[in-house]
Amino acid sequence: MRALVLNGPNLGRLGSREPEIYGSASHDELANRCAQWGEELGLQVEVRQSDDEAELISWLHAAADSQTPVLLNPAAFTHYSYALRDACAALRAPLVEVHLSNPAAREEFRRTSVISGVASGTIAGFGLDSYRLGLLALAAMAG
Amino acid sequence: MRALVLNGPNLGRLGSREPEIYGSASHDELANRCAQWGEELGLQVEVRQSDDEAELISWLHAAADSQTPVLLNPAAFTHYSYALRDACAALRAPLVEVHLSNPAAREEFRRTSVISGVASGTIAGFGLDSYRLGLLALAAMAG
Amino acid sequence: MRALVLNGPNLGRLGSREPEIYGSASHDELANRCAQWGEELGLQVEVRQSDDEAELISWLHAAADSQTPVLLNPAAFTHYSYALRDACAALRAPLVEVHLSNPAAREEFRRTSVISGVASGTIAGFGLDSYRLGLLALAAMAG
Amino acid sequence: MRALVLNGPNLGRLGSREPEIYGSASHDELANRCAQWGEELGLQVEVRQSDDEAELISWLHAAADSQTPVLLNPAAFTHYSYALRDACAALRAPLVEVHLSNPAAREEFRRTSVISGVASGTIAGFGLDSYRLGLLALAAMAG
Amino acid sequence: MRALVLNGPNLGRLGSREPEIYGSASHDELANRCAQWGEELGLQVEVRQSDDEAELISWLHAAADSQTPVLLNPAAFTHYSYALRDACAALRAPLVEVHLSNPAAREEFRRTSVISGVASGTIAGFGLDSYRLGLLALAAMAG
Amino acid sequence: MRALVLNGPNLGRLGSREPEIYGSASHDELANRCAQWGEELGLQVEVRQSDDEAELISWLHAAADSQTPVLLNPAAFTHYSYALRDACAALRAPLVEVHLSNPAAREEFRRTSVISGVASGTIAGFGLDSYRLGLLALAAMAG
Amino acid sequence: MRALVLNGPNLGRLGSREPEIYGSASHDELANRCAQWGEELGLQVEVRQSDDEAELISWLHAAADSQTPVLLNPAAFTHYSYALRDACAALRAPLVEVHLSNPAAREEFRRTSVISGVASGTIAGFGLDSYRLGLLALAAMAG
Amino acid sequence: MRALVLNGPNLGRLGSREPEIYGSASHDELANRCAQWGEELGLQVEVRQSDDEAELISWLHAAADSQTPVLLNPAAFTHYSYALRDACAALRAPLVEVHLSNPAAREEFRRTSVISGVASGTIAGFGLDSYRLGLLALAAMAG
Amino acid sequence: MRALVLNGPNLGRLGSREPEIYGSASHDELANRCAQWGEELGLQVEVRQSDDEAELISWLHAAADSQTPVLLNPAAFTHYSYALRDACAALRAPLVEVHLSNPAAREEFRRTSVISGVASGTIAGFGLDSYRLGLLALAAMAG
Amino acid sequence: MRALVLNGPNLGRLGSREPEIYGSASHDELANRCAQWGEELGLQVEVRQSDDEAELISWLHAAADSQTPVLLNPAAFTHYSYALRDACAALRAPLVEVHLSNPAAREEFRRTSVISGVASGTIAGFGLDSYRLGLLALAAMAG
Amino acid sequence: MRALVLNGPNLGRLGSREPEIYGSASHDELANRCAQWGEELGLQVEVRQSDDEAELISWLHAAADSQTPVLLNPAAFTHYSYALRDACAALRAPLVEVHLSNPAAREEFRRTSVISGVASGTIAGFGLDSYRLGLLALAAMAG
Amino acid sequence: MRALVLNGPNLGRLGSREPEIYGSASHDELANRCAQWGEELGLQVEVRQSDDEAELISWLHAAADSQTPVLLNPAAFTHYSYALRDACAALRAPLVEVHLSNPAAREEFRRTSVISGVASGTIAGFGLDSYRLGLLALAAMAG
Repeated sequence: MRALVLNGPNLGRLGSREPEIYGSASHDELANRCAQWGEELGLQVEVRQSDDEAELISWLHAAADSQTPVLLNPAAFTHYSYALRDACAALRAPLVEVHLSNPAAREEFRRTSVISGVASGTIAGFGLDSYRLGLLALAAMAG
Repeated sequence: MRALVLNGPNLGRLGSREPEIYGSASHDELANRCAQWGEELGLQVEVRQSDDEAELISWLHAAADSQTPVLLNPAAFTHYSYALRDACAALRAPLVEVHLSNPAAREEFRRTSVISGVASGTIAGFGLDSYRLGLLALAAMAG
Repeated sequence: MRALVLNGPNLGRLGSREPEIYGSASHDELANRCAQWGEELGLQVEVRQSDDEAELISWLHAAADSQTPVLLNPAAFTHYSYALRDACAALRAPLVEVHLSNPAAREEFRRTSVISGVASGTIAGFGLDSYRLGLLALAAMAG
Repeated sequence: MRALVLNGPNLGRLGSREPEIYGSASHDELANRCAQWGEELGLQVEVRQSDDEAELISWLHAAADSQTPVLLNPAAFTHYSYALRDACAALRAPLVEVHLSNPAAREEFRRTSVISGVASGTIAGFGLDSYRLGLLALAAMAG
Repeated sequence: MRALVLNGPNLGRLGSREPEIYGSASHDELANRCAQWGEELGLQVEVRQSDDEAELISWLHAAADSQTPVLLNPAAFTHYSYALRDACAALRAPLVEVHLSNPAAREEFRRTSVISGVASGTIAGFGLDSYRLGLLALAAMAG
Repeated sequence: MRALVLNGPNLGRLGSREPEIYGSASHDELANRCAQWGEELGLQVEVRQSDDEAELISWLHAAADSQTPVLLNPAAFTHYSYALRDACAALRAPLVEVHLSNPAAREEFRRTSVISGVASGTIAGFGLDSYRLGLLALAAMAG
Repeated sequence: MRALVLNGPNLGRLGSREPEIYGSASHDELANRCAQWGEELGLQVEVRQSDDEAELISWLHAAADSQTPVLLNPAAFTHYSYALRDACAALRAPLVEVHLSNPAAREEFRRTSVISGVASGTIAGFGLDSYRLGLLALAAMAG
Repeated sequence: MRALVLNGPNLGRLGSREPEIYGSASHDELANRCAQWGEELGLQVEVRQSDDEAELISWLHAAADSQTPVLLNPAAFTHYSYALRDACAALRAPLVEVHLSNPAAREEFRRTSVISGVASGTIAGFGLDSYRLGLLALAAMAG
Repeated sequence: MRALVLNGPNLGRLGSREPEIYGSASHDELANRCAQWGEELGLQVEVRQSDDEAELISWLHAAADSQTPVLLNPAAFTHYSYALRDACAALRAPLVEVHLSNPAAREEFRRTSVISGVASGTIAGFGLDSYRLGLLALAAMAG
Repeated sequence: MRALVLNGPNLGRLGSREPEIYGSASHDELANRCAQWGEELGLQVEVRQSDDEAELISWLHAAADSQTPVLLNPAAFTHYSYALRDACAALRAPLVEVHLSNPAAREEFRRTSVISGVASGTIAGFGLDSYRLGLLALAAMAG
Repeated sequence: MRALVLNGPNLGRLGSREPEIYGSASHDELANRCAQWGEELGLQVEVRQSDDEAELISWLHAAADSQTPVLLNPAAFTHYSYALRDACAALRAPLVEVHLSNPAAREEFRRTSVISGVASGTIAGFGLDSYRLGLLALAAMAG
Repeated sequence: MRALVLNGPNLGRLGSREPEIYGSASHDELANRCAQWGEELGLQVEVRQSDDEAELISWLHAAADSQTPVLLNPAAFTHYSYALRDACAALRAPLVEVHLSNPAAREEFRRTSVISGVASGTIAGFGLDSYRLGLLALAAMAG
């Protein structure tokens, strides 16, 4: 089974961006780890990143058409992109929202997610492991 | 006279997306209907859709230059895109904001429109007919 | 088919009241225009106006009994009359909420409508044409 | 002893209005039931209904003059009629506020009562029995 | 010159209603006092009272037509009647808002006036003298 | 039929605690009265009081298992105990929320109830009689 | 009898400061007018102005000691000076709050007065006449 | 390594309580599943449940002393128990907050967690699997 | 004279819990210090700690019966336990609320106390000395 | 060691100002008591009072330079003087905020202190004893 | 040294868009002026404009990599683009936020900037000169 | 041409007050730098500082009379002094608001300026350079 991992704005700079919060692994490493974890779960994982709201939306549209389960780290779009939310709401396979860090322990504005209400579930605060757990959750729900 | 119909994010998926809310007609059908309705009103209607805020803004800029009246369904951008609002504010021909469904009868966040304050008027809740009524309004204002 | 046009408080003074906002046509002219537009749509339109919440409610009750579609301009009642709202909620034919001006471009308090949540749809900002469009919408929904 | 049962806007349509919320008994049936319950309690119960704020106020004024205890279902006026509140505040015999349904389990705006602060007590959520309990309470307080 | 004194809901019961707040003079006494004060100022004062929003609105409409200055005690309508506000906004002679008691020293909800924004000025807290001062103000503005 | 009367924190001190608000009857007297009233209604009433959130919850769990109708005075837990609310939500027989005094006429924080939304109905402000009315309501609903 | 007229910050510049709002009379003219009006009322009026919160407070302290009635235009202190409020609260003769313009028709922040709650009454919106009416009110209350 | 799974109020009734939200597995089944999952991860998992805030706190104190990692489902305490929060803040091994359902998709009040700010991370929405993922996360963090 | 020192949740772990905020003295040391300070003031001080809301309430009930003055550190219950507040409100001897640290200089939620409104006074921010000062205050008030 | 006691606006009128709240001792008596208490603690206490924000600030500046500990009763400045706050923030010896009465039991606006966040601690509600306790606290912190 | 001037949505239309607010210079003229000003300061200034959030983000990423100082006019993104904010937060050379007009003197929504918190400083209200001053500030900080 | 630099409360202590935020230069150095910068710009700069709201207001009045442009650092008055705002609103030459530090990156209360709405523009966050840039802006606007 296929699974899509979609990463939102600024996540392409993982490793160099505020490593004390987001960790030192690069986005490539993240992608490799996800692929590996997927393999172990029988998931063919594809990882994509974009800073572009419209591009993320188009990927979600495709996932809706193909009924692919999605792991989404909406990054800063978490807090305001109702366009992303509407695209998520149209998915037909499970959607898991993940965050590397724990938004509840950071700035006030990070405590609002416009995405969570249309996700199957959320995982936050475990660094790269948020993705591993998310893939597990996807596999379990899709299985 | 020309008139522009601009559709915002996720509206390209009309028909497949939550049809109980948005109806079963596809975006192509919507575009055809608009063209037809325009013809009856003496309007040369062009329908465009984009999930991309910047592309919608560029179309609004062109409409401002050519003084073309605009029918805009901002979709989810309704609730946060001040960039779209600023582009709308610069239009010189009438702007009509339309919605397929009635935002007042849905989630709380859908009750806020950052666009309405710079529109000539708004029409919401009539499905495809929101567009027909909007074109009529445009024709009347521009006539 | 019959259709009822109900106008709320102060609308009897159309033409003399703040004409820069509400236009120069009198309520009689509005009524005539509505009758005419109705005729073109095969609707037998009756226009009534009242400054009295209870009278508007009684007309809505009658419309509920006779399953008559209603075009309602609640005027200032828009912002607080939950009694009107409850009466509207009991209608069984379509209800269209109309406004002459665009409330979103006026005072803050005009941005709240306690009626919209129970209307089929809303039309605002097109002067008398708001009524024409509203009758069209009624005709389409009732047809 | 006399007791007055006052029913606010739209309650004249009991039985036909949203029966899944308000029950299937008509206002006449409600009036008969109240008369009967009153009789059992030694209360001469008079039931009146009005959609008109001013008429309800005038009844409250008369009750204040005659020191008649009042059972009031303010219906939608519950949420905004400070005029009704002021009239209630001038009563000298007990005032009981009743509701057929439980406002706390419905729309957000139904959670605010401008009347409760000047009532002796409130009873909500028991259908017609709200009136029976209210009459009992009135009889006990007035006894 | 004529001047209109309009008193809102529950003010017909002056003297008997919460006299520790509103004083012991009856509405008739108030009317007589206003007539007398008016005479001293060369104003032909007519005092009316209504618990009925629609009746107050109709009086304001007539005052707008005849360009009569108005002294208005909106009583509880102060806090929510946008319909009254709209009628006031259409007056062409001065409008003075008066209150017997000082709303700022009472319940929280009395601190909001939807009328003040369209009045020439406001006078509150001086008991019957609020009317005397208000008539003086009207006379000065109209003179 | 059995019925459970559950009293929340500080109600064990009825009679000595702020008697001007809560009356002079002790909790024992309240219990006796409830038993008597229950008898008249064919209800075998058991009255329990606890200051302990967990104990109240355990009683609610037992009531859920035995499908016993419950009369609950949550006292101060009314305003914050979502744990109690969740336990109430799981009841399968009717739940009536009662209060001795009228919270709407007291401190601001007493106007919020986290329980009401999951109760069948509420009764407040009638002193001990709140319980009598509540038992009547329970009997009627359960009958 | 003596009466004190106290004017707050920036009122010393009357006539030159935003005359379209505050009128063209200077503070000296205002003082003269007040003296004259006082004379007609048998009041020995003294007018003082200060931009200094502490100086205004010291004047209020003296007025409290001598039981002198006070007419206060707190100007911008209206909106935040709780120190002035506390000084006002200690007055033993009447206090009238006046404003030249109508704060309700200006910026949002001008709608809050921290002074009104401790004033006998308020008068706003009549230009210099606000002072004349205020002195009349003082004379009547003190008489 | 030991790990503690702590379940808050009403979770002892898993399976019978609103199974459409919380699933049909009982608390015993949950405990068994957790033990099993723990075993696979080399964790000696102990599962406890309490409706009693103080008991949960005492378990957290013990976990702080023994530096045991904790998986906590605070249930309704999530929304108000600052006492639990303070106990969590004193833990020295990782703390994972889990929820069976997705609070973001339920009532407004469930969107506030007073616990999240002191947790290492949170997992919500995956039914029993929330616990499996949480144990995995604990094992990874503690490993 | 007796005096009761009641410490709320998590205070039993003084010394080990966040010592940079709460200091390094243990609860036993605190109790000893309080006993000593009491002795110097002629107070027979008894110090108790509980994480259990109901136990604290029962101690307050006993103190109400015996008219014992109370020094209360409500700890996290400060922010939400209206049950504790109601128990405090029934005390007949003085109640002093103390805090080791200064809540105003910590997290936002620590700025709200539901207890302060029913305390005689509050002391916060002086570490163990908060208790010494509190006992002094109790002694002075009770003396 | 020196210590400064600074009293804010209106405190010079202690004894005559609302004695039911602030007590009957005059400011001179307060000053004498503070001197005496200071002597007992080995503190050379100087008491100053000003209604003038700038004068209080200048005293705080001097105290910052001389590293003198300060006991501050900011009176009404508590609620809005960020200028005072900034001056307090620059102190290098301890700062204790005191209040004669308990602000939490008075008007809503008195519940906000802009000073507390930069004080070492606060003491409120014990009348003159608030100062005695405050000096003790200062002595302990400075000792 | 290089410096980057980044202009957000709708700024490409400078000169034609609301010139009474934004001035009559075109974006090309702005770019030329910036280049010239840069030259005078020894800065090699490159000016770019985009309506596309993702493109602005990519430019900020490049600036982070090359440690180039940035002058950013986020235009309407100021009010909601947390994605832009996150990109700004990762810059390592100074960031200056500029605005042509003064947002504090315009619509309410323009008073919120999600960018300012991560900028070195802000300059607003001086038309084109905002850029000149911003470049000066950049030169000074980078120098 | 003359220009006035006005510094608000606590700025006289520059250099010793929180130097990590406000820098190590003293107010004298700031004044010298401003004089020098002014000279380069052909401005005769006078720098004044006061902790006294009334004194700042009097300086603004004089500047209004002489039409002198003003550079104002309102310091803590920024957040509440509507009296200062009203004085600023009466200026006839440009007004620039400056801040040494970036208020948006500090405490929540520093994000509100009651001055900005009446300033020509604002500059914040550049330390002493905020003044240099402000003088440049003044010179440009006044030139």
